[in-house]
Amino acid sequence: MKLQGYQRHIDRLNEWNRDNFKALYFDSHLVGYLKEPVWSFLSSRSDLFTVNEREVSLNPQINSFEQRTEVLDEVVNGMVESSVMTHRHGERYPVTHADRDSALATIDRAAAAYFGLRAYGQHLNGYVRNGSELLLWIARRSADRRVFPDHLDNMVAGGLPHDISLADNLHKECQEEASVPSHIVAQAVPIGAITYCTETPVGLKPDTLYCYDLELPSDFVPYNSDGEVAEFMLLPIEEVAERVANSDDFKPNCNLVVIDFLVRHGIINPETQGYLKLINGLHEKL
Amino acid sequence: MKLQGYQRHIDRLNEWNRDNFKALYFDSHLVGYLKEPVWSFLSSRSDLFTVNEREVSLNPQINSFEQRTEVLDEVVNGMVESSVMTHRHGERYPVTHADRDSALATIDRAAAAYFGLRAYGQHLNGYVRNGSELLLWIARRSADRRVFPDHLDNMVAGGLPHDISLADNLHKECQEEASVPSHIVAQAVPIGAITYCTETPVGLKPDTLYCYDLELPSDFVPYNSDGEVAEFMLLPIEEVAERVANSDDFKPNCNLVVIDFLVRHGIINPETQGYLKLINGLHEKL
Repeated sequence: MKLQGYQRHIDRLNEWNRDNFKALYFDSHLVGYLKEPVWSFLSSRSDLFTVNEREVSLNPQINSFEQRTEVLDEVVNGMVESSVMTHRHGERYPVTHADRDSALATIDRAAAAYFGLRAYGQHLNGYVRNGSELLLWIARRSADRRVFPDHLDNMVAGGLPHDISLADNLHKECQEEASVPSHIVAQAVPIGAITYCTETPVGLKPDTLYCYDLELPSDFVPYNSDGEVAEFMLLPIEEVAERVANSDDFKPNCNLVVIDFLVRHGIINPETQGYLKLINGLHEKL
Repeated sequence: MKLQGYQRHIDRLNEWNRDNFKALYFDSHLVGYLKEPVWSFLSSRSDLFTVNEREVSLNPQINSFEQRTEVLDEVVNGMVESSVMTHRHGERYPVTHADRDSALATIDRAAAAYFGLRAYGQHLNGYVRNGSELLLWIARRSADRRVFPDHLDNMVAGGLPHDISLADNLHKECQEEASVPSHIVAQAVPIGAITYCTETPVGLKPDTLYCYDLELPSDFVPYNSDGEVAEFMLLPIEEVAERVANSDDFKPNCNLVVIDFLVRHGIINPETQGYLKLINGLHEKL
């Protein structure tokens, strides 16, 4: 077994050039990274931000959750009016320097990518054991989805808005995407989190995915109710591993969730060269 | 639940001051870190090493596995004669820049700590399920062990010498330490690896522990045959978690193996502040 087929997905999701960015600080907390033209836009507001060679700092007198949120909304409105940003999304995302519950402010979801803010999601591996055989439920994304239509996906996956608990959001996503009843969702085991950090045309995406394993009864069949999933397939783990290693069929970050599953279930072999790099690559730091 | 009780073990095993060290390079590969008086000793051999402000580099003409091993043995002999090192160990350890199977040379095991070389071990969590209850087999180290006598330990744990496969070494350690028969060891699931990096009086310890989960039959009782273990106890997972969080009863690095187990089995809760820091802390990079 060669690990290069897996590693390339991790490498692609961790490509970024520090030289293209200025770090964004709230108080002394690193909260994000800015690319042009975002930092130039902020430097025009010297009442709010101090901009130097490497860093952009929010005026320390703007020091409450409410004040910071208000300033960010004002700036985001200005960025949309000046076409620095294309649109607002409407959902609120936290601005954090560590965990998602340590938010220093909130911001419109569409702005997260422009400010290089940590974004959070939840991905669930739904699996079935049949004797010694292990099978994974894999979703195929609908053809009309905005990003990665028709691509393969984890059984349940979704973003984490501000102000909803992990447990509540997981129940909501499991219900909407796969019609998993509450008493079964309650058996999902939170098994850790993976992180990656990618440069995009408009900014940086440092993402954290909380991951879950859910062993399903062999007679359970997921059924989509929100139109986001075209079909569900129950595939032998070896077939899933082969698709991840040798194709780009999956939505990119879902590959990492599967790779983490393969590592934790002993399917990716520690005798293989590159094993330690692969594991560390699932935990890149911003 | 607060995570501080767990986090302190990770923090303690990741304390080091870069200013105390020079990086050691073989070709362009970073293989270790040197403290005084080791780098001064090496600078006296300008035929073999180039020493500057931040780095020590092996002469690039010494470019085969055998040549490097020979040079290191010569240097280690000199260090023992000059009392820079106290003793030789006799066992061979790999000198690596990534995985253990990418060795550029070997060196006496006792020298690893002085050269800041990556060292590798295997730790196994032996557990039992009793309905919804989860129990862990915990070892108490013998009173006559050189390091951490009487401390708690994972069911099986041992260092990984050069030139033995992970599978073979695991079988050997499981047999010696806990009398686990081969057909049961074969069911151990490799679930990943944890890494940490600690400053010691003589050098740096960047360690990698390959971790395994082994579900044991409820009637299996481990029995020690090499004198390294004083007793084995089967403890409810909640009691083990409490001991790790609130005491220093465990050998330090064994705490990290238990913490990783608690994360992967959903016992450490992702709703708790500090969860992401804790997980990333189990994967520190050299």
